[in-house]
Amino acid sequence: MTEQTWKTAITKIEPNKVAVRGYPIDQLMGRISFGEMVYLILKGELPTPQVGKLMDAMMVSSVDHGATPPSALAARTVASGGAPLTTAIAAGIMTINQHHGGAIEGCMKVLLEAVAYQHEKGLDAQTAAREKMAEFRAKKIRVPGYGHRVHSDDPRTKRLFALAEEAGVSGEYIAMGQALRQAMLESLGKDLPMNVDGGIAAVLCELGFPPELGNGFFAISRTVGLTAQVYEEQTRERPMRRIDPTNHEYDGPAERMLEIRD
Amino acid sequence: MTEQTWKTAITKIEPNKVAVRGYPIDQLMGRISFGEMVYLILKGELPTPQVGKLMDAMMVSSVDHGATPPSALAARTVASGGAPLTTAIAAGIMTINQHHGGAIEGCMKVLLEAVAYQHEKGLDAQTAAREKMAEFRAKKIRVPGYGHRVHSDDPRTKRLFALAEEAGVSGEYIAMGQALRQAMLESLGKDLPMNVDGGIAAVLCELGFPPELGNGFFAISRTVGLTAQVYEEQTRERPMRRIDPTNHEYDGPAERMLEIRD
Amino acid sequence: MTEQTWKTAITKIEPNKVAVRGYPIDQLMGRISFGEMVYLILKGELPTPQVGKLMDAMMVSSVDHGATPPSALAARTVASGGAPLTTAIAAGIMTINQHHGGAIEGCMKVLLEAVAYQHEKGLDAQTAAREKMAEFRAKKIRVPGYGHRVHSDDPRTKRLFALAEEAGVSGEYIAMGQALRQAMLESLGKDLPMNVDGGIAAVLCELGFPPELGNGFFAISRTVGLTAQVYEEQTRERPMRRIDPTNHEYDGPAERMLEIRD
Amino acid sequence: MTEQTWKTAITKIEPNKVAVRGYPIDQLMGRISFGEMVYLILKGELPTPQVGKLMDAMMVSSVDHGATPPSALAARTVASGGAPLTTAIAAGIMTINQHHGGAIEGCMKVLLEAVAYQHEKGLDAQTAAREKMAEFRAKKIRVPGYGHRVHSDDPRTKRLFALAEEAGVSGEYIAMGQALRQAMLESLGKDLPMNVDGGIAAVLCELGFPPELGNGFFAISRTVGLTAQVYEEQTRERPMRRIDPTNHEYDGPAERMLEIRD
Repeated sequence: MTEQTWKTAITKIEPNKVAVRGYPIDQLMGRISFGEMVYLILKGELPTPQVGKLMDAMMVSSVDHGATPPSALAARTVASGGAPLTTAIAAGIMTINQHHGGAIEGCMKVLLEAVAYQHEKGLDAQTAAREKMAEFRAKKIRVPGYGHRVHSDDPRTKRLFALAEEAGVSGEYIAMGQALRQAMLESLGKDLPMNVDGGIAAVLCELGFPPELGNGFFAISRTVGLTAQVYEEQTRERPMRRIDPTNHEYDGPAERMLEIRD
Repeated sequence: MTEQTWKTAITKIEPNKVAVRGYPIDQLMGRISFGEMVYLILKGELPTPQVGKLMDAMMVSSVDHGATPPSALAARTVASGGAPLTTAIAAGIMTINQHHGGAIEGCMKVLLEAVAYQHEKGLDAQTAAREKMAEFRAKKIRVPGYGHRVHSDDPRTKRLFALAEEAGVSGEYIAMGQALRQAMLESLGKDLPMNVDGGIAAVLCELGFPPELGNGFFAISRTVGLTAQVYEEQTRERPMRRIDPTNHEYDGPAERMLEIRD
Repeated sequence: MTEQTWKTAITKIEPNKVAVRGYPIDQLMGRISFGEMVYLILKGELPTPQVGKLMDAMMVSSVDHGATPPSALAARTVASGGAPLTTAIAAGIMTINQHHGGAIEGCMKVLLEAVAYQHEKGLDAQTAAREKMAEFRAKKIRVPGYGHRVHSDDPRTKRLFALAEEAGVSGEYIAMGQALRQAMLESLGKDLPMNVDGGIAAVLCELGFPPELGNGFFAISRTVGLTAQVYEEQTRERPMRRIDPTNHEYDGPAERMLEIRD
Repeated sequence: MTEQTWKTAITKIEPNKVAVRGYPIDQLMGRISFGEMVYLILKGELPTPQVGKLMDAMMVSSVDHGATPPSALAARTVASGGAPLTTAIAAGIMTINQHHGGAIEGCMKVLLEAVAYQHEKGLDAQTAAREKMAEFRAKKIRVPGYGHRVHSDDPRTKRLFALAEEAGVSGEYIAMGQALRQAMLESLGKDLPMNVDGGIAAVLCELGFPPELGNGFFAISRTVGLTAQVYEEQTRERPMRRIDPTNHEYDGPAERMLEIRD
């Protein structure tokens, strides 16, 4: 009752050879960044250097958001029971779903739908955005990727769009993102800038990634912060403590500027 | 029954500001690579550009090893039941432990112990390695990080050591790694080169990371490949299939060379 | 920034008192079975003794289905990497979703919809079943809970329905389950008996549980088998083995009969 | 590169037959309780009716401990991100480890060691307990299974020991448990009754289970409560809320007495 040979197009393994999407890993090492590797393995092709830099920026943007997100709290809580590092990190990743990080996928779907509508109807972006917003309001659909419970104007989003501009990938999805913000302002009377999830969503659309990978990009980025959160919990706190989700303070290095190297 | 304010030194969150280890993330975006961010958040300081490049190389080296490692199989199996992307990725990460990826931590502990012994006894590396190997053999301890079930001489390890040399961090831990290989050859009659886990272990020791983070580095890197594995499973295979761990074939791009940009 | 006091109606904890749904646990111990406790905590009330016995039977029915289900394979695979017992069990539970165990929830929704339709239209069960089946076929909806990849006529389902009859809870949902089988036979020309998931679905509908708890009942039952699977993997197999999903044999006790005590 | 046929002694699957440890499941249904099934699958043999009742009591004792244990908080936190029921339950189970539930395994090891010491030295239980306690104090080992952060005298433990007495399995491990309490009182000046983990540990030793299954028994029992906790979170709370670990109130049924049926 053996199954047929199944296929995978990701990595070829032969003795003394490991090739991802055709490229031997040892040749990639030292030549592409970790962010470029994320692009390569999920897209199947290497990014241009400009897009590669954008990928790194996107992955850098979401590594951590302190100790309050549910992913950090779940990971710390699992660690406090005595689970190993990777089990606790995994609990954090399991928390990434519709309501936490899921705005990337949700916003990508909206942007793809709105731009398709714009093309289909032969409209300009702002008109398409207004008509789509009216439709969403009628259907009581909330557009994900706008506004934030802490940040009124997320500096990460602005920086991401500036880098997308530099990389030459700032196109109709980013434009639609802005048009929807304007349409929301007109229809709701509230100016809700895109949050970092919305910004990532717009860039991922520009780069041609499917929305179903949205939580994957967030998980890849956040695994870095979760590793730091769990390690801090394991080395700094006592086991089985009751982890208050808000009553904590930052006591790390004071704010400092990056010595600009570029 | 409230708990006291607890402390975290990782990320400071204020309205419109997210600072990791003191650096505003939006300033880091576009200026440091994803690999450099891994270093920053886990070490607390930015790496030099040379070490940053080494970090990227290390993270690139372990993103994926095809569909046979238990982490890939666990992730695909969980996905085949219908779990969301992040749940399946998490199952893969949970598989990373003592016997899968755990050689990084195990080898780091051996290298730290052997170098400490060398210093304490005032020996040269090769003599210290021989005496430690004799001790390990007597205690029936197997040194992790040497040999591989597929690769007799892993090209990723050689590349990693070359890059460590370039970055100027090739010191006594990498030397001890080689000395232990020689001691193993003399005592076991088998030449077992360091595998990629052993290579990463030696470099992480050089960079001053604690061995308890070994599985964390592997988890960060492998999350990338697991995302690709799960997405391929979800888009290419039928649900509830029986996943044969060996009977599969690579059908992705043929081997190709990186256009050297550096 | 404290949150308001939130509420829970499950368990009250006071010094030297633990009361589930109002009943002190120490009073329940020795007086209700584990299956009755499952009912109490999820339903909020104690079952009658007859229904309690049915609950035990339902929980007993799905504890394990050998080493081939994806939950068992995921749990064993995670264990083979070196994860602790509970991490590996958790991976098995994460596998329970739409395509594995999910037929309980899916079938419950169909039964609830079909019986509601029957009432609304004032039809007999068989006519309602025929009309619903025609609708499902037109919409290309497959009815979950019928047929099995191994069992043509699952003895567990028959036994479950007999016990439901004994318990006096065999009503319109079980009847609708049978009517749908007949409607499928007429419309597809195939006789697909309800599988154990379908049987459990029908009984859970009779008992008034919501379909959203379907995977929960399966998870509770299967955790028992997963514990046995992981423990066997940890004590009987070597780490990091490649676990063939089909190429295994049973070598436990030969078939034996229960000494009837009732 | 196929692997050899591997073996499993848990469940035999044939068309229209599912037999656990040799017993067809459909014959077990309606004849053994869920707690007896836990015993059968983990022990390989059916319990006597008395031991079966004790198993049910043990499984009933630990289903839930309100919303404060880390397992409940981790499960609720993962659910609040939008994960499916089973993923959230799994996160709760992953939290069960050395510091949460792990006292069962830890206490079993102490009891097994102390009773073995008693036999080896030909001592009475109290003398053996005193000598072991002196040894533990010298090695700064804390004996798990005694005392509780909420309960000064856990009614579940007393009830469990009474039921063990009734079942005729109250032997030297339970006696050693009491002897260690007395030795602790003498040496520490504090009377720490066995908590429910310690009680379960002593009973599991009497029944001949290995300590490595300790977390498994706790996971099986607690999965029931975790299912209730996650379902309540999903149906009663808004997503992405900050879950205060202590600031909550019970608003379920008032305390009520079980109508004694036995």
